[in-house]
Amino acid sequence: MRVTAHAARFARGPLAPLEYEAPPLGPDEVDVAVTHCGICLTDVDMVDNKWGISNFPVVAGHEIVGTVAAMGPGVDTKRLRVGQRVGVGAICGSCMRCEWCEGGKQNVCSGRVDTVMRGHLGGFASHVRASHWQFVQPIPEAIASEHAGPLLCAGATVFTPLLRHGVRPTDRVAVVGIGGLGHLALQYLAHWGCDVTAISSSRDKEAQSREFGARHFIATHDADELKQAAGRFDFILSTVSADLPWDDYIAALRPRSTLCIVGVPEKPISIHAIGLLANEKVVAGGIPGSLIETRQMLEFTARHGIKPVVETFPMAEATRALEHVRQGKARFRAVLVA
Amino acid sequence: MRVTAHAARFARGPLAPLEYEAPPLGPDEVDVAVTHCGICLTDVDMVDNKWGISNFPVVAGHEIVGTVAAMGPGVDTKRLRVGQRVGVGAICGSCMRCEWCEGGKQNVCSGRVDTVMRGHLGGFASHVRASHWQFVQPIPEAIASEHAGPLLCAGATVFTPLLRHGVRPTDRVAVVGIGGLGHLALQYLAHWGCDVTAISSSRDKEAQSREFGARHFIATHDADELKQAAGRFDFILSTVSADLPWDDYIAALRPRSTLCIVGVPEKPISIHAIGLLANEKVVAGGIPGSLIETRQMLEFTARHGIKPVVETFPMAEATRALEHVRQGKARFRAVLVA
Repeated sequence: MRVTAHAARFARGPLAPLEYEAPPLGPDEVDVAVTHCGICLTDVDMVDNKWGISNFPVVAGHEIVGTVAAMGPGVDTKRLRVGQRVGVGAICGSCMRCEWCEGGKQNVCSGRVDTVMRGHLGGFASHVRASHWQFVQPIPEAIASEHAGPLLCAGATVFTPLLRHGVRPTDRVAVVGIGGLGHLALQYLAHWGCDVTAISSSRDKEAQSREFGARHFIATHDADELKQAAGRFDFILSTVSADLPWDDYIAALRPRSTLCIVGVPEKPISIHAIGLLANEKVVAGGIPGSLIETRQMLEFTARHGIKPVVETFPMAEATRALEHVRQGKARFRAVLVA
Repeated sequence: MRVTAHAARFARGPLAPLEYEAPPLGPDEVDVAVTHCGICLTDVDMVDNKWGISNFPVVAGHEIVGTVAAMGPGVDTKRLRVGQRVGVGAICGSCMRCEWCEGGKQNVCSGRVDTVMRGHLGGFASHVRASHWQFVQPIPEAIASEHAGPLLCAGATVFTPLLRHGVRPTDRVAVVGIGGLGHLALQYLAHWGCDVTAISSSRDKEAQSREFGARHFIATHDADELKQAAGRFDFILSTVSADLPWDDYIAALRPRSTLCIVGVPEKPISIHAIGLLANEKVVAGGIPGSLIETRQMLEFTARHGIKPVVETFPMAEATRALEHVRQGKARFRAVLVA
């Protein structure tokens, strides 16, 4: 099969057409004809080789929606059929043999295949290949294709910690950063039953945050607002890639509560131990979920009518769309449409 | 009642006799005649005003064993009687009204009374006053008085995280720092059924660590030994006050596992976020437990015959004993005997 992709040839390079012949399908592999692909900050990081793990040419894009184009002979035909609408997120395969896969935690398998890392070619393309059919997710009918992509990475990234850290509907929670991830997190937490606070640098996004379900808003350009929130939250989800005043966020937690970090700050996180110790507080890192967690996210999203707010760009304008995301201008998620 | 205490008059000062008349007992208060008192690094920190919260004169000592000397009229006489052998640890009272006290998590009550902080007078004395009788713990018969003190702070500090973080007997665990806390942690974890590794700077404590229950030993003066342990542990308990190569310890965790910090390093803890995120890892802080957790620790200790290794000093030589601890020479816990 002939594939046309939009590839960066070098770090920070423009996305230019790359044509190649896809090799024969392995038994568990699935080719998906891409109709939509969201753009995540990690796509920018891979194109820019910010993590130092990019193999060029890089084809980014891991919030993929499309239809099954071809399936290997090992694919479960009760689950997937050619032509079916499906999605592929940040992980498109795992070893399926290790204790983590066996235990349903495929997202921490050391053999997992990240859709846009270490040379795997992602969804800014006519087709994308998933390494294992179990990572090709049927999309509930209630979810539009332009919305489904951002759910598969951004949605799963902010939804999974609610399961993992036992967030309860009685909790007072905060979301730091109201962007692609944060605007979904506000919606999930509001539908989870929580008392939700949005935390952003300025008041620019206050009205929208309240529409997404926030009851309270903290603008951190006034440093006192955050300090006044000391001891307030049962759970804080940080979605930003900025370097935060971490001790203030730890202080904003109630005793025995968790700060979960799903954004990737550039500098190391720096925290005074005594702030963690004194009230048994926790700092955790999160990534998009396992298979069952992703399934639960899609069901919850469909059931509550949760939608990402997206801006669409033609796939042919992938370079421009990527730059839009790189500059932090997306409100709230950019999606390429084939 | 006349009390003779060993008090520091100024930061890093010697401990000199301080005599005072104890005020009348409040309804829930209990006076304990001290027979034994362990010395914790926090006692040194309070005498040295390292945390900047000491009110001089400071009477340190919060690993207290003795007998009930007098009780207020509100004390439950089914629980305590004059003359009974009891212990008082790092917390000697809490508000007993807030949601945390109500929920059995008195150790994170904002009104908790720390035995040696903010002006409360501790156990380097003839008597110590507990603010609430529920924090005066009967000591199981099987535990010797010279051993009971160190259990109430050091023991509770390392035991509580096993409950809090759901450590399982099938886990591979590591204890960093084989001192007053660490030598107890090794014993608890071995009796918990775990596969236990001791981590120390040199091999000096290897033989003793194995006696305490460690099956494996890592000496970090060879930095490679720690790096080779990448992905090995389900739980790491850090008991040291040194600044560690935190990223290496995060790397030593298995996916979805926890580094629990109960020592107080001087500098902020610095961690690259990606190490936390990539496999959903967790950093947590711990302190001595709640009432029920402390009770469970004492029961577990008695049932398994776990014993701190102690060096005893006469109470009159408190200054010398404190200096011994300040210099890190205690093997493994110094205990003052009245």
